Amino acid sequence: MANKPFMAWMTEIQQQVEGALERLLPSDQHTPQKLHEAMRYVCLGGGKRVRPLLVFAAGELVGASADNLARIGAALEMVHVYSLVHDDMPCMDDDVLRRGKPTCHVAYDEATALLAGDALQTHAFDTLSAPLPGVGPAAQLAMVHTLARAAGHAGMAGGQAIDLASVGKALNQPELEYMHLLKTGALIRSSVLLGAMAGRPLSEEETARLDVFAKRMGLAFQVVDDVLDCEADTATLGKTAGKDAAHDKPTYVSLMGLSEAKQFARDLRDEAFAALEGFGDSAQRLKELADYIVARSF
Amino acid sequence: MANKPFMAWMTEIQQQVEGALERLLPSDQHTPQKLHEAMRYVCLGGGKRVRPLLVFAAGELVGASADNLARIGAALEMVHVYSLVHDDMPCMDDDVLRRGKPTCHVAYDEATALLAGDALQTHAFDTLSAPLPGVGPAAQLAMVHTLARAAGHAGMAGGQAIDLASVGKALNQPELEYMHLLKTGALIRSSVLLGAMAGRPLSEEETARLDVFAKRMGLAFQVVDDVLDCEADTATLGKTAGKDAAHDKPTYVSLMGLSEAKQFARDLRDEAFAALEGFGDSAQRLKELADYIVARSF
Repeated sequence: MANKPFMAWMTEIQQQVEGALERLLPSDQHTPQKLHEAMRYVCLGGGKRVRPLLVFAAGELVGASADNLARIGAALEMVHVYSLVHDDMPCMDDDVLRRGKPTCHVAYDEATALLAGDALQTHAFDTLSAPLPGVGPAAQLAMVHTLARAAGHAGMAGGQAIDLASVGKALNQPELEYMHLLKTGALIRSSVLLGAMAGRPLSEEETARLDVFAKRMGLAFQVVDDVLDCEADTATLGKTAGKDAAHDKPTYVSLMGLSEAKQFARDLRDEAFAALEGFGDSAQRLKELADYIVARSF
Repeated sequence: MANKPFMAWMTEIQQQVEGALERLLPSDQHTPQKLHEAMRYVCLGGGKRVRPLLVFAAGELVGASADNLARIGAALEMVHVYSLVHDDMPCMDDDVLRRGKPTCHVAYDEATALLAGDALQTHAFDTLSAPLPGVGPAAQLAMVHTLARAAGHAGMAGGQAIDLASVGKALNQPELEYMHLLKTGALIRSSVLLGAMAGRPLSEEETARLDVFAKRMGLAFQVVDDVLDCEADTATLGKTAGKDAAHDKPTYVSLMGLSEAKQFARDLRDEAFAALEGFGDSAQRLKELADYIVARSF
């Protein structure tokens, strides 16, 4: 697998994650069917699967099994998707398009979107706490705790609350970074950490280095997202383009300008790369993935 | 503690749980303040704390520590409260009163209620996956899994989806029981199971007996709730009374009549009692609590 070209590797992982989600999500043949249908509708057949890709790439550092990484990646994707479903609801961003399809409350109804998001979050913890062969219970419990920290009030949900409070306000760069550190960065970072918890134990120094990589990539991912939101049209993006500007939300582009934001993303990638020195060939996929994520904004 | 009168024991546990929630919930002095305020508003200073009481009562069977039980009870209460916050939102039951106070989306706004509910669910898993002194990681991981199963698509969230789909439909008793088995029963049952997982290991037979108790009480609790919803007025109940009938939702009272529903609750309590034979004095609190829950409907 290590010799496979990056794009082929990425496609293969995306298929594995799709398969895992397909198996792990409840069947739409079982009651309550509408809820199960909605959970499958929002999770399957779309998305770049960035978080699962990070799980797999980090898992290569520690020789983790592909089956376990697929399950961990699926759990992270469920958390990510639940946040999108709730974020798109009328009381939040009120958006109608996501991953090239009508959003959940448009395709179903608001109550179903609310419940599907709720049930997806729970299902992530269900998925992550079910047996992972070869992973000890202490390591697995630490994974659950890491995910909960990353997704909650001091992570993703907290970041969304700050985002909500910041509409129409002029944030400076430290404030903007803090918001994104929580809103997007925490889950991206936890994807890297969880993948690396599924195999041989890392030394303290290795964990610290990997955490630098994870933090830089969490931030770079958001900077790239802002660049894409500014540059791309809706058809290419698969979600409504330019909506941050339309909602008067601060972005890296509005704060630093377009070319500076692109340069900032490249600088973050280079710092992330530097943190991986010492891992040798086992860090190849993480580097390729970091490069790919940032290159999307070129 | 075992010799303390039941009402004094209950008050003491309720205070311990309030204290645990107070400590475990994020401070409203920290950013994002509005989110943290809303999380505290909905969790603190109200509610009968039935689920934590069940955790403590079941914990007496196995000699679990009060500190651990308070943490586990707080996690269950967070899941319960998150479900109330989302259930009260305009796209669901659209209710304005809960535990004698304005509901979260009335006191704050819809977006904050959505995020506070989301963050409370996450915080329950955060709380339950943090260290529990004296409890092994395998047992703790099993607690996380049990809670996730009880709260998700095959438990509480699934039950709410069935409830939503059943408005205006004439359910028969098996259908109504299945809905409540998921919607209320699963979390009540998991409260008993989680408390009993925090101390000495139970034998298979003991676990099976306790599970019968837990299932009967889950159902009894809902039957009592339907009786109270029919009989009480809004001031006594602290939430909008008679709303199930107003929403044309099937209830045990509408299905079997008032006095039959009360008798059904008593029968369930007696079956629950019978399942505890063999536990001796260590089951005293569970029996007292079961009696108290059902007696609310007399």
